[in-house]
Amino acid sequence: MEILQNARVNSTISPSERDALYKVIFSRRDVRGQYLPDAVPDDVVQRILHAAHHAPSVGFMQPWDFIVVKDMGVRQGIKDGFETAHREAAALFGGEQREKYCSLKLEGIMDAPMGICVTCDRSRSGDVVIGRTPNPEMDLYSSVCAVQNLWLAARAENLGVGWVSIVHHDHVRKVLGIPEHIVPVAWLCVGYVSFFHETPELEQAGWLPRMELKTLVHHEVW
Amino acid sequence: MEILQNARVNSTISPSERDALYKVIFSRRDVRGQYLPDAVPDDVVQRILHAAHHAPSVGFMQPWDFIVVKDMGVRQGIKDGFETAHREAAALFGGEQREKYCSLKLEGIMDAPMGICVTCDRSRSGDVVIGRTPNPEMDLYSSVCAVQNLWLAARAENLGVGWVSIVHHDHVRKVLGIPEHIVPVAWLCVGYVSFFHETPELEQAGWLPRMELKTLVHHEVW
Repeated sequence: MEILQNARVNSTISPSERDALYKVIFSRRDVRGQYLPDAVPDDVVQRILHAAHHAPSVGFMQPWDFIVVKDMGVRQGIKDGFETAHREAAALFGGEQREKYCSLKLEGIMDAPMGICVTCDRSRSGDVVIGRTPNPEMDLYSSVCAVQNLWLAARAENLGVGWVSIVHHDHVRKVLGIPEHIVPVAWLCVGYVSFFHETPELEQAGWLPRMELKTLVHHEVW
Repeated sequence: MEILQNARVNSTISPSERDALYKVIFSRRDVRGQYLPDAVPDDVVQRILHAAHHAPSVGFMQPWDFIVVKDMGVRQGIKDGFETAHREAAALFGGEQREKYCSLKLEGIMDAPMGICVTCDRSRSGDVVIGRTPNPEMDLYSSVCAVQNLWLAARAENLGVGWVSIVHHDHVRKVLGIPEHIVPVAWLCVGYVSFFHETPELEQAGWLPRMELKTLVHHEVW
């Protein structure tokens, strides 16, 4: 891949390249409702998967797999799982909050032209993995890093991504025929969009405010 | 922050901006041994924390905190925890593999001029969080997304980052005085470097090869 080769030859990042990275990070959104039906070209899909595959991984185990789903029937199976989990979740919110929760658009499983499931194979590269022995969750975290790389790469391709976590992962496993020992980490809706929101939708809806960074930063100790 | 404002005003990513993102992703490394002692300017630290704070989070809960550690005594406490976990881990590898494991440089806790601990406050924003009810691990995953944003932002600032996972998180909590209900997610070494390796060090050392992407991609179902 040419971009990969360029990255290796000249590894200093210029100020304009740095600013491009920040632009991608700050304009990335969790997209639920602005998907266009246009197909995503195969070479674009390959590029975002390639970016995901270059995430950091504990002990270089690369525990991820990617299931690219365009089939409407398969996606309907995921959507059914969302509906179930969504009803269960709604029941947990009290009165006014429940009404607000139910008014939110929370997924674009059938609206986007494709979904990508990212998984974690905890048995990959054997039982003993460098860096995972004191913290067994590290391999799951590696797959999450792959999700975030994919998300930013997609944003850089002007593609929207929405992470649907309102679905039981056992349901996802069943619908996609994922082996028992593989853990589903994310269902991502992926597609071109009519626009990107300027700020997160939950912030706009008044669900929660953006916290002030300075309240989250500690020095030397907590 | 000016960059943030620019991202909002013009949200289409150009091909050259896209390629800059890919360059950052492909040239990011887990740095252990090439740290320079030079201090990282405060405005640079603020920018990478700002990028971390703009990671996606489940139900917009923003569960992360950041502890910025320069003090040598505090870092020595983390390093002691690494030594303990490193000895325990070494004992789990068999003969030849153990020898190789022990020959690897795996952390730069005292070499880098600073460390940043990223945590997850699972109680933030209350008991019921949108998207976390079916998958309780989602808030931890949000903090991991913040780690990956920080890592890429640091790379874009030509800073090396190394995630030290060979340390028990309870030890990290104790050294940094982190409250019981907060989960340490990552200890990151951060600093300028003499150079970035072209490929991951564990790949260069022959520990594991880079897998072929095509073996990790499935279509429609597993």
